[in-house]
This record gives sequence, C-alpha cells and structure tokens, in this order.
Amino acid sequence: MLIRGTSLIEKGKQVQDQDILIEENRIVEIGPDLKGDDEIIDARRMLAIPGLANCHTHLAMTLFRGYADDMELMPWLEEKIWPLEAKLTAEDIHWGVKLGCLEQIRSGITCYNDMYYFMDETAKATKEMGLRAVLSGVIFDMQPQLLDDVEPFIKRWKGDELITPAVGPHAVYTCSEETLLKSLDIAEKYDVMLHIHLSETKGEVESFTKEHGKSPVEFLDSIGFLSERVTAAHCVWLSSRDIKILAERKVNVAHCSISNQKLASGIAPLDQLQKAGANICLGTDGASSNNSLNLFQEMKTATIAQKCAHSRPNLFKAEEIWKMGTTNGYKALGFDIGLRKGALADLVLIDLGKPWFCPISNVLSHLIYSMSGGVDTTIVNGKILMKGGVIPGEEEILENAQERFLDLVSR
Amino acid sequence: MLIRGTSLIEKGKQVQDQDILIEENRIVEIGPDLKGDDEIIDARRMLAIPGLANCHTHLAMTLFRGYADDMELMPWLEEKIWPLEAKLTAEDIHWGVKLGCLEQIRSGITCYNDMYYFMDETAKATKEMGLRAVLSGVIFDMQPQLLDDVEPFIKRWKGDELITPAVGPHAVYTCSEETLLKSLDIAEKYDVMLHIHLSETKGEVESFTKEHGKSPVEFLDSIGFLSERVTAAHCVWLSSRDIKILAERKVNVAHCSISNQKLASGIAPLDQLQKAGANICLGTDGASSNNSLNLFQEMKTATIAQKCAHSRPNLFKAEEIWKMGTTNGYKALGFDIGLRKGALADLVLIDLGKPWFCPISNVLSHLIYSMSGGVDTTIVNGKILMKGGVIPGEEEILENAQERFLDLVSR
Repeated sequence: MLIRGTSLIEKGKQVQDQDILIEENRIVEIGPDLKGDDEIIDARRMLAIPGLANCHTHLAMTLFRGYADDMELMPWLEEKIWPLEAKLTAEDIHWGVKLGCLEQIRSGITCYNDMYYFMDETAKATKEMGLRAVLSGVIFDMQPQLLDDVEPFIKRWKGDELITPAVGPHAVYTCSEETLLKSLDIAEKYDVMLHIHLSETKGEVESFTKEHGKSPVEFLDSIGFLSERVTAAHCVWLSSRDIKILAERKVNVAHCSISNQKLASGIAPLDQLQKAGANICLGTDGASSNNSLNLFQEMKTATIAQKCAHSRPNLFKAEEIWKMGTTNGYKALGFDIGLRKGALADLVLIDLGKPWFCPISNVLSHLIYSMSGGVDTTIVNGKILMKGGVIPGEEEILENAQERFLDLVSR
Repeated sequence: MLIRGTSLIEKGKQVQDQDILIEENRIVEIGPDLKGDDEIIDARRMLAIPGLANCHTHLAMTLFRGYADDMELMPWLEEKIWPLEAKLTAEDIHWGVKLGCLEQIRSGITCYNDMYYFMDETAKATKEMGLRAVLSGVIFDMQPQLLDDVEPFIKRWKGDELITPAVGPHAVYTCSEETLLKSLDIAEKYDVMLHIHLSETKGEVESFTKEHGKSPVEFLDSIGFLSERVTAAHCVWLSSRDIKILAERKVNVAHCSISNQKLASGIAPLDQLQKAGANICLGTDGASSNNSLNLFQEMKTATIAQKCAHSRPNLFKAEEIWKMGTTNGYKALGFDIGLRKGALADLVLIDLGKPWFCPISNVLSHLIYSMSGGVDTTIVNGKILMKGGVIPGEEEILENAQERFLDLVSR
C-alpha cells in the first residue's frame, strides 16, 4: 500500500508531500516520490499521524453510554452499573466491544488497553474489527473463578498478531494481597503486562491507608508488584512519596482526565509525576463515565485542566501532551508504533480541509487544541479499517448494539 | 420548507417522527404528518435542536488560531497577539470572520456575540454567511476614536434582520469611568446591549480592587452600569457580594470554560452564580485562546470542570448545561429562538447514525457528554447554510483565510 502526498509531523513541524510505503503490516519507507504499489491512497490534503493509544478503557461498557450520568459514584455503581453488569452475556460484550471499536476507529485510536469480563469475546470482536489491544480479564476476590480464567486466556491468545493478553487485578481494595501476588506471578511466568486501577478516589485511598498503614502505592511496592510491567489507571490521589515510587519503579500511569472530572474524582498530579520521570499515557476509561472514546478530546481536556489547576498556561505544551497520547502509550502497551521505517503500520489520515485546521500554522497545536473531527482513514497492522470516513458494516453494528442495550435493560 | 420525520427533545425526552414546517424565517408548525411544502428535508435519522448560542467570542481572531499557545497571558498578548492586531485590515477581518462562521455552522452554533475591530466588515461577512449576531466594536481608552465609531455603527445596523448592533467597552481596567458611562448612555439611548469582559483573571481583579477600593463588579454597580442589558464575559474571580450583585442586576454571565482553563485564569463559581439566580450562558472566547469554536465541547468541559472543582458529580446535569448553551443564551442575546411554533427558524439537524450516539438511550446526555460530530444541516432565519455537511463556498473561504494569515504574519 502506498500513501501518496501526505503531510507528516517531524520534530514538531509539518512536512508536506511525503509518501508512506506499507508492505504487509509494516511501514517499509517514508519519503517523497516513492515507487509505488498497486493500492494507492491519495492523501494530498491529509496529515498522517501514528494511531493514538487508549491506555485505559472498558470497551464493552460502551453499551452503557448515557444510561446513568450526573450521579455520585456509589449510587451510580450500586443502582445502575453493577445490576446491568450482572446480566451481561457474551453476546452483549460482542456488540458493545464492536461499538467501542467503531468509535475508536473514527477517533483515530488504533490500540487500546482493556480490563473487563468475557475477554475471549472481546478479543474476537476486536480482531474482527481489526484493532490492536492489550486485554485483561478483570480479577476481583468476590468472584474467585475470574482468577482461574487468567492463565487459560493468556495461553489462548499469547502470540496473536493483534491481541496481547495481560493480567488485570481490579484494585487494591477489591483484591487481597494473595490475589495481587498470584496476578503478579502469572504476569511474570508468561511475561505479560499488569493492568490495575490505582488511587482513583480520595475516599478509597484514605480508607485503605487507614486500614493498612500504607498508601495503595506503598502497599503495592511493599509486595513487589510495581514495575514497568504495570499500567496503573487514574493515579489521582498520590503523596510525594507515591509519586517517587511510581517513577522509580517505571510504572506506566494511564491518566483519565475526563472520567476523573466527570465522576468528580479529582485532578491528577501530572506535573509532579512528569518531573519525577513517570511514563504518563492517556485513557478514556469506559464510555459509561466519559462518555466518549476520543483521545483528541482527552488530550485537550488533560492539558487545559492541568494548566488551570497549576495557574500556569505554559504547562503541558502541545508536544508534551501529544507524546502522552502516542509514544508514551506505545511504550506502556509494548507496541512498536510510530511513523518511521520498520514500525507497525498503525496510522491515521486526517483531512486538513476542515475549518478547525485553518489557518494551517502549527499543525500540532491544531491536533491538540482545535480538532473537531476529520479522521478520514484508519489503518491498523497494514489493513484499512476506515477509508473516506466509511467503515464497512457500521450500520449493522449500530443496530445490533442498540438491540442488545434494549434487551439488556429489559431483562 | 418542511423538515420531515426528525426526532426532537421535549421535556428532556426524545420524541420521534416529527415534522417542522418553516415559512419565511419562522417555524410555523411542529408535529407529526404535517402538510408539505415544496422543499422537503428528509430528517428520518436526525435529531433537530435549536441552534446553539455562542455568547462571547472575537470571531476574526480565528485567523490567529494556533499562532501562539501555551504561554503566560502577558507575553502572549504583548509578544504575539497585539503586534498582529496592530496590523489587521478590513480584508483580514472579512476572511477571519468567514472562517469563524464556517466552524460555527459546522458546530451547530447559529448565533454569536462578538466584540472586536472593523465591525462593519464583521457584520457584512456574517450576513454573507447567513449567521445571526450581536456585534460590538471594542472600546478602549487607548484608542479614543473607537468610542466615536459606536453610534454611527449602531445607526447603520439597527433593525437589520440578522445583525444586532451593541456597545462593547472592553473592561474596567481598559476603560475609564467616563468611557463606561458614555457606553452606557449610548446603549440606553438606542436600547441596545452592552458587552464587557469582567473579572477574568485574579491579578486584574486584585489590582483593580486595590486601586479603587471596590471590586470590578462593585464598581460597575456603583456607576449604574449593571442591568439585564449587560452580557459580562468570564466572571471567574467573584466575591459572594459580586455574585449577589450580578444576580440581582440580572446581568447575563457568559462563561468561557475552555478559554479560562487554557489561559489558566481559573474555574468560575458557576454553582454559586446559579444558586443566586444569575442567567448563565456559554461562550467559546476567540479561537486564539480556545482554540475551537465548538459549543458542544464547551458544554462538556464546563460541566465536568464544575463537578470536579466541587467534588460533586451530580452538579450541572445535562439538562442544566444544555439550557446554558441554548435558552439562557437566547435570553442574553435577545433572540426569539427555540423549537416551537412562532420562533425564528434557527435550527440544526444532527445525524444520530454515529457511534457516539449509540445506544440511543438518553439523547440529551449524548449531546452533552458524547458528541464528537455529526452536525448535518444548519438553518438560520429559515435559510439553509449547510446541508449534508456541505457549505457552499467553503473551499474558497479556507484558501483566502490561509492567504490572509500568511500575509499578516509576513507584513
């Protein structure tokens, strides 16, 4: 596949009239006037970017979008979310995941990190949609069989081209030390990642610390859980000691600005985390608490919230937040993605002929601060998932997701 | 014009299969199976909403989009914005305004409140684009002729179908008491609105209060400036006394959440303003400090920032923030807009066949929390400005705006 005449961003600057040659699932060459291939994409008014990495989500929950908003966390979970989750079937998961994939494809997200139930179904639906994902079945002490499912799931999917299995203990307040250590053992045994929620709400951190005499981060560190194998979602309520530990242990922090604000959890100390050297990436969280799966929204919201919280408009400049949505995310998820020779062909073409990209002055600024749509083409693993804004089979997925939702709430 | 088979929101709920009959510039009937008209719009998978009201912007500044970001306020103004503004010509304004109109049409904004230079040019360009606007030439003491231009401008435009002239003294720290009183006199003489920046930054409020022994709000009240005639942008740094005054005087508060966060000005006390009974509406501010002109973004950002600032996820529910983007805005700008018989035909059709609207459960929630595009048709004053996502002449405007920008920065 040859992408012809696109713009790129090199060292923060826009470079025009570039070709990208893709063979199989890799980028084999980037430059002007490349010799062709049969399949040519005319990208003369497009900007090519590497696909965005959504480092924390629960994709099947897209089915719950708009079902319950504007509520306190516990009533939201107890009265709305958990009763629905208790009724979920593999069929619901299938269409919920596909719906979430549609939105991610339309928003330029090409890989994601998910923790939920029915992960075989999630893996199958993701593969059918063509996205790349790290998938962990959620582990709670309340449902001991979830832990038993982990090893078989890893064995079934390890080595897959698109699906990377991982281990997902839910959080320190829902998993015992024993469960956390078993999760760690499995992750080390199979050399896979760990995905956990960490220090999301003030109440959760306070009650854990009171009970254990250690913060959640200190506790996880004391049992040897923390390493670069871990992607920890949220990390909102951290002490300076916690921040130091996360950075030293090279934990990947998946910051979820919109979800944290919508659920009123708080503003994470990104500046201190960055200064300490932590690898910060971004996540949408589930569509039940966002309610979008849109990393462009996430990048803008994250940087302006940080600027405002610190009264410093020069905090988290466009290039820094862009790194969080891209390279920091690839590092967290272990994917070899980027617009360079040899990298996986996971990329997105954005139509610059939209008023929010005009005047074209600083295109990186536009991606972070002005973007209101225009993702035209999404390619993952060398395969076109959307072209000219068209995703084959979209209508059928929307109809089925709608049916599953109506069925689910009436069950 | 007959819009056929659309969905509407009535009392927060979606109602399907409705027709909207438009004659001249008014809605004459809404209901099922209306008898037709020659021009029929098939809206069977659409949601009709009244157009959104952008209650504070500087539209020509769209030309500066992305030119300077991530800077402290004073260097941003002194080194970047003011030098460009000093070189602006009527031709620049023309294309800057048209560019801003394009983006507003694509984002479902049908009316806006602007304060800037060259307002005759702004009015002409706005009329050519077909949008509705309240326009004020900005008034500063530093350029005394700006005040002289106000009355002739009002006389030229008063009574226009789309353009409502108004008076725009910039702020208490750039206009003397005499200038403010003259502005007020003119507004009362011609019975037009006043548009002013008020208490945007902490520094500005502190230094004014130190010098005058009164807050900016107290000062404006003491000279009789405040009434329902006034739309005050920002209102971030307010005392409880200020809040009481603004509510009692029925001042319209144009809240600009994204601009306030991006410039690190702060989070306005919306909750207290609402409790006091103030009329809160929303604005994007200029694209130089946002960098979008997108009121859907504004509604989401505003509500999640408030929830988070107050640690209360049930603050500013979807229906409340929706009111700020619509009816509160129409009230501030004095426009008879709404999806009801007799109202001005200023409305927008949104394509619900997008993944971010699925599952369709609570459509008002989706408009606030999930919306990532899909504005299909924009109608103002009974005239179609965009249909099926196509705005006639868009390409030419984008090219001209780009040229003007390049010319401006090289002048």
